[in-house]
Amino acid sequence: MSERYDVIGIGNAIVDVLSMVGEEFLTANGVQKGVMQLIDADRAIALYGAMGQAREISGGSAANTIAGLAMLGGKAAFVGKVKDDQLGAIFAHDIRALGAEFSTPMAPKALNGEETARCMVLVTPDGERSMNTYLGVSGHLGPDDIDADAHAAADWTYLEGYCLESPDTRAAFAKAIKAAKGAGRKVAVSLSDPFCVDRNRDEFRRLVREDADLLFANEHEVESLYQTGSLETALEAARADIAMSAITTGPTGAWILTAETRQHVPAAPMERVDATGAGDLFAAGFLYGLTQGHDLTTAGTMGCLAAGEIITHIGARPEQDLKTLFKKTGLMS
Amino acid sequence: MSERYDVIGIGNAIVDVLSMVGEEFLTANGVQKGVMQLIDADRAIALYGAMGQAREISGGSAANTIAGLAMLGGKAAFVGKVKDDQLGAIFAHDIRALGAEFSTPMAPKALNGEETARCMVLVTPDGERSMNTYLGVSGHLGPDDIDADAHAAADWTYLEGYCLESPDTRAAFAKAIKAAKGAGRKVAVSLSDPFCVDRNRDEFRRLVREDADLLFANEHEVESLYQTGSLETALEAARADIAMSAITTGPTGAWILTAETRQHVPAAPMERVDATGAGDLFAAGFLYGLTQGHDLTTAGTMGCLAAGEIITHIGARPEQDLKTLFKKTGLMS
Repeated sequence: MSERYDVIGIGNAIVDVLSMVGEEFLTANGVQKGVMQLIDADRAIALYGAMGQAREISGGSAANTIAGLAMLGGKAAFVGKVKDDQLGAIFAHDIRALGAEFSTPMAPKALNGEETARCMVLVTPDGERSMNTYLGVSGHLGPDDIDADAHAAADWTYLEGYCLESPDTRAAFAKAIKAAKGAGRKVAVSLSDPFCVDRNRDEFRRLVREDADLLFANEHEVESLYQTGSLETALEAARADIAMSAITTGPTGAWILTAETRQHVPAAPMERVDATGAGDLFAAGFLYGLTQGHDLTTAGTMGCLAAGEIITHIGARPEQDLKTLFKKTGLMS
Repeated sequence: MSERYDVIGIGNAIVDVLSMVGEEFLTANGVQKGVMQLIDADRAIALYGAMGQAREISGGSAANTIAGLAMLGGKAAFVGKVKDDQLGAIFAHDIRALGAEFSTPMAPKALNGEETARCMVLVTPDGERSMNTYLGVSGHLGPDDIDADAHAAADWTYLEGYCLESPDTRAAFAKAIKAAKGAGRKVAVSLSDPFCVDRNRDEFRRLVREDADLLFANEHEVESLYQTGSLETALEAARADIAMSAITTGPTGAWILTAETRQHVPAAPMERVDATGAGDLFAAGFLYGLTQGHDLTTAGTMGCLAAGEIITHIGARPEQDLKTLFKKTGLMS
């Protein structure tokens, strides 16, 4: 990576396998609704065998954010690990096709062993998504995959919370954070999932308090971080811990918090077909706003509009051109 | 295949790679609009590199027909060749998930060489699709993959016209036809594409005149078969050649022709987003009607309704449950 980026995102490189299912499918197959569960290869085979027909669309939380940023015209790069297999080629193609840089070395071709990560995303009629992730090679993203100079030059380093599940990727985060903070650059972190927060709470707390300048989370995730059932308590705890937080609240919008300010930005009025990627695209719009020098209200509105686009269709990569959408609503000239 | 099937379809086993493009993309990349072009591995890489983000949905013309039939509750099997790779696993999963039998031996795993077939489907804003097919292992479907007993037992053997491009698959067709006709069963053939007809006209003419009992085509394909610019001339030529023809005419519907009868069935009024698979799903609905013992008008109406569903969304596999759709319109009780 030789250029200077607005945002470099580090995350799991995943292809989503999306299928519509009834509520009873979740129950019958032991899938927990609305969250992400990590599954092994055997469980992946069994669950896929039980699933109906599907479609494959590139995903990955930070990758979706970087894809959205690139589509908006931001200078964005993604760091994540695929294998040199067919799904890896699909992932690499789709993110580069939107203008993002993606040059992390692929795990080499091999007939057996771990493959490119996939996530079986089960979408129920209410538009909620329940995710089942086989991490494959994506969990092996390590410090050697981090270009310290690039992070020292980028305005923002964006860290996907899901990656805390992997020791290798925690070490990759540490290297990127050191490079970014050493150069006076900023670090953003997403909490990703309430149960992921639960499994890695100490490290998330440390990250938020010590390393990060901006926290992305939804209400359930931030409540999990601070072990409270009160959003208000969680918001104020975040406010005390970190310079800026953007906490999405589903259909109502998002809270934007700094030490001095606190405001709620309303969601874009869209019909929810599939919630997959809503938080990721909120982060894309918000970071686009920040890196373009907009105020927090505008950045929050941009986040809500990008999130609004993604929930109107199946899959976590924008279908409408986000630039055109932003121009239509006057957010971009 | 130990059971008795209503329809066994033989065709190319393909995963579609679908992307929305502007008209100028077709021009700039030498893609001929509205037809299928066969491409080699190098061209596939170059074209994919130029394409924007895409989604992967199982396809293949006869496979789409068999998928639709299975979704409607027909006893349907598909015969086609994938490799034991990730796209092959996706193809096999998706068709089985709809209830179709698919047990053709996969080409074995290998690090290099031909892979499972894919078709880059470029969808323009008018809803037209332009297809670029890398055949890979699917062209190696041969006589050894044909279970003669199964074809001798099935009501219908359905042959995908595209397969005439492959000498191996022509030989597979011959074996299936011999088994089916020898047992007094029926054979249907689709013309697939006007240029495919042009490249293989003699064999298509022979098939239609000598082997097949039912012809599926659109107006351009049947005009190509009889080398005429007049649909009327082509329809009458087909009527003289074969016991039954179902000739789709795009947004207006379809002609159903026998020696004694000739009628036009109107299309279902749907907004066209992506024409991919319209002909395939017409065949699914029509064959479902025939095998359920319905009259030709009903079978034609079923064909038009299944085709109508498929054009309302991206991809050539039904998104709505076709049974529910048929029940809503009173075509199924």
